[in-house]
Amino acid sequence: MKSNSYDIHVVLPRNYFAFTPLLPSVTCGTVEARSVVEPIRSITRKSGVNIHFSEAECYKIDNKNNKVYCRASKDKKLGGQEDFSIDYDYLVIAMGGRSNTFNTPGVQEHAHFLKEVDEALKIRHTVVDLFERASLPSLPVEEKKKLLSFVVVGGGPTGVEFAAELHDFVLEDMAKLYPSLKDYVKITLLEAGDHILNMFDKRITEFAEQKFARDGIDVRLGSMVVKVGENEITAKERSSGQIVSIPHGMVVWSTGIGARPEVVEFMKQLGQVNRRALVTDEWLRVEGSDNIYALGDCATINQRRVMEDIAVIFSKADKNNSGKLDLQEFKEVVGDIIDRYPQVDIYLKKNQMKDMASLLKKSQESNIIVDIEYFKEALSKVDSQMKNLPATAQVAAQQGVYLANCFNRMEECEKYPEGPLRFRGVGRHRFRPFRYKHLGQFAPLGGEQTAAQLPGDWISIGQSTQWLWYSVYTSKQVSWRTRFLVVGDWGRRFIFGRDSSKI
Amino acid sequence: MKSNSYDIHVVLPRNYFAFTPLLPSVTCGTVEARSVVEPIRSITRKSGVNIHFSEAECYKIDNKNNKVYCRASKDKKLGGQEDFSIDYDYLVIAMGGRSNTFNTPGVQEHAHFLKEVDEALKIRHTVVDLFERASLPSLPVEEKKKLLSFVVVGGGPTGVEFAAELHDFVLEDMAKLYPSLKDYVKITLLEAGDHILNMFDKRITEFAEQKFARDGIDVRLGSMVVKVGENEITAKERSSGQIVSIPHGMVVWSTGIGARPEVVEFMKQLGQVNRRALVTDEWLRVEGSDNIYALGDCATINQRRVMEDIAVIFSKADKNNSGKLDLQEFKEVVGDIIDRYPQVDIYLKKNQMKDMASLLKKSQESNIIVDIEYFKEALSKVDSQMKNLPATAQVAAQQGVYLANCFNRMEECEKYPEGPLRFRGVGRHRFRPFRYKHLGQFAPLGGEQTAAQLPGDWISIGQSTQWLWYSVYTSKQVSWRTRFLVVGDWGRRFIFGRDSSKI
Repeated sequence: MKSNSYDIHVVLPRNYFAFTPLLPSVTCGTVEARSVVEPIRSITRKSGVNIHFSEAECYKIDNKNNKVYCRASKDKKLGGQEDFSIDYDYLVIAMGGRSNTFNTPGVQEHAHFLKEVDEALKIRHTVVDLFERASLPSLPVEEKKKLLSFVVVGGGPTGVEFAAELHDFVLEDMAKLYPSLKDYVKITLLEAGDHILNMFDKRITEFAEQKFARDGIDVRLGSMVVKVGENEITAKERSSGQIVSIPHGMVVWSTGIGARPEVVEFMKQLGQVNRRALVTDEWLRVEGSDNIYALGDCATINQRRVMEDIAVIFSKADKNNSGKLDLQEFKEVVGDIIDRYPQVDIYLKKNQMKDMASLLKKSQESNIIVDIEYFKEALSKVDSQMKNLPATAQVAAQQGVYLANCFNRMEECEKYPEGPLRFRGVGRHRFRPFRYKHLGQFAPLGGEQTAAQLPGDWISIGQSTQWLWYSVYTSKQVSWRTRFLVVGDWGRRFIFGRDSSKI
Repeated sequence: MKSNSYDIHVVLPRNYFAFTPLLPSVTCGTVEARSVVEPIRSITRKSGVNIHFSEAECYKIDNKNNKVYCRASKDKKLGGQEDFSIDYDYLVIAMGGRSNTFNTPGVQEHAHFLKEVDEALKIRHTVVDLFERASLPSLPVEEKKKLLSFVVVGGGPTGVEFAAELHDFVLEDMAKLYPSLKDYVKITLLEAGDHILNMFDKRITEFAEQKFARDGIDVRLGSMVVKVGENEITAKERSSGQIVSIPHGMVVWSTGIGARPEVVEFMKQLGQVNRRALVTDEWLRVEGSDNIYALGDCATINQRRVMEDIAVIFSKADKNNSGKLDLQEFKEVVGDIIDRYPQVDIYLKKNQMKDMASLLKKSQESNIIVDIEYFKEALSKVDSQMKNLPATAQVAAQQGVYLANCFNRMEECEKYPEGPLRFRGVGRHRFRPFRYKHLGQFAPLGGEQTAAQLPGDWISIGQSTQWLWYSVYTSKQVSWRTRFLVVGDWGRRFIFGRDSSKI
């Protein structure tokens, strides 16, 4: 069964899909913006299925009447006809997040963000613009230095990658074209925590901090930004409590993501308050609805705790209602438990147990008979392994594939459910729950040096990792066209350098 | 002597040089904007000479005090320091022209132009935008048709090339991605004259008109636009006197060029009124000044007429003051006459005379002795061959090379002047006057068909001419980088088509 049994309508305020992991490269022209985007229509056309697409923003979801309200960007040429609504049987929300300003004053007005293609292009434009301004003959040296002070807020992967890109751009390209300005450039990275790249292994963090120190990038740890002004950014240093002001020509704000206003509105409608994103179950279905799904940065999976269900798990497993679980009974449900509660699996791996039976074994006994109290005790720690998934493209992409697969196999799985036992209910779940498979994460550090944390805590740092990065990012491109363009851009950069034309 | 004996300062409101002949290709993404631009600093750096560059607009020329006043684009970050002035010994004005609206109401507000890179990009953005809007589910068919009505005003090479590009884009790319809209697209070309491409040979004009008719491009000859509205353009048909209104989604205005306001201001200062551009002598020196030069679209050469100087020419030639010119005397000045008055040469070639002696020969006499009256009579028609040079990149480029050459050889030529005799004064001109060498002109007509008019009235039309166009435009690129990029873009388009992402 192919997806052409559905009538699909895609609504997006842009008419292209952007490969966002390459956006930091777009900011300095290492890769062109057009090389990381693919028109939605060209993607849907290749699917061979008739998919409607509208370039519009969804501003309201009416889940009572199964309707979404959309608006094409306002334009006088349409004379009020830019509003329309779409009825749905199923709704998939994948609206992403937006930059989180933590309500810091001045951020929205004076800082640049790095979530959308046009934001990346604006940064590129501004960088070159600042060099041109700093070249004006009328400007005193102090002013030149102010203009060429670049401040990056947030030491996560995006902020670090941008700082590294900017440093490379200045060193490799701008220093040749603006030789007199080279010494006035200053890059400052403000991180509120104790280290940059703190979601990475300590070895990577250390390497990155040392490399940035060698590169002359001023990394200020424990710096909480309290205000962004037009020409100045103010931070509070945690250690000393001191307030420090740094003049800037440009601030790039990259401190993680928050929920978009439309999503917040919808969360209110559903009674989901005080959550950072739309809460879904493990099948990506939005809690409080039965035909709305959410994935990517706008959603978060509310993984059911084992401890919440411990009584029903035990009673489902204890088929003969003896109040005791023996090995045979246990073996029959162990697969379902692991399917339904992935934290169990992670816990076992972490503690180097080969299967769940090891968890229940008392010393070296070969037979296992446990009661509910013992069962509870044995599983009491597994929930500690529950983690929110990171807000990365990797997670979103896997969720997209998972959900498409579910829809494509909906009829089949209605008849032959393939999911785990419903411990609280009867029968089985139609599908296996979504399971994220972490394939590793890169942190490009500039100068052809990249760090990577691969599954199993493998660490790889250096130029060979940069080449691994090149090949992974090439293979992840959405089309052969963009693959060809991205590789072409890298080649062009090696031969001719980056373009500094202010377009 | 290299140009490093000069202290050179370049002022330009953009920090890049754009290869404008490819702008029509940029409008539809056949070629990317970045592929046709090269940063000024990268060009000046390659020269090996230290050249200052400022990204600023020159808003005033003070020729009394040899000073130009410049302003970097206004920005709060500079706090008033965006103004500066530069003293000069020599000034070269090469500010180009601007689109001529003939003061037609609404053009400035509602039409697109095609002179700058950002204008070409705006057209590209608008074309895709119109297709996206026309796809909205809420829109009735009539509205879709209005949005997809593209009107091009001006049947010169730029207007024709844009119409052809747009037609190809719709046919080759958009028809695939927006199959339901294909039939609603309408391209209309309004030309006030009797034919499109009227500066070309009749065979080319005919071919182009026939091709456009086959392509379904509605060419309306003798249509004078009287008003451009937001959604409607109004034209007067010369033959019937009727006023016709055409609804439009986009109007592209391409009816030739006019003078920029700063140039007009400077012309007033010099007393050059009622002229379409800065008037220079044949050495590109601005009339009424002795250290200011002008070239390209902002300038026009005031070629001295033979008839104005006929008396002094005769007396300079008549060395022995006999009142008669014999062959020997004549031969001594003929080279100077042809150098100083290029129209003579053009006249001879046009009338298939092998040298100027033929002009003076009475029937088959071998010896020539003429008096002033006969001399006047014989040369009376040569001035008819004087023509203003076209406002093309070809002319501007040749003028640039010529002027650079003059400056580089200034000292040498002061000592050993190489120009023609000064007929009105004494001695010789330092340099030969600028002489334009027409290498031919292309008119791309879409569908891999190009027409070319080559020197000697050679005409070439078809696909082979398209390939000639590709090779000439490749060779004319300003750097190896852009050459590589432009060819890459053409290749990409053949393989993957044009990108319709709205960036």
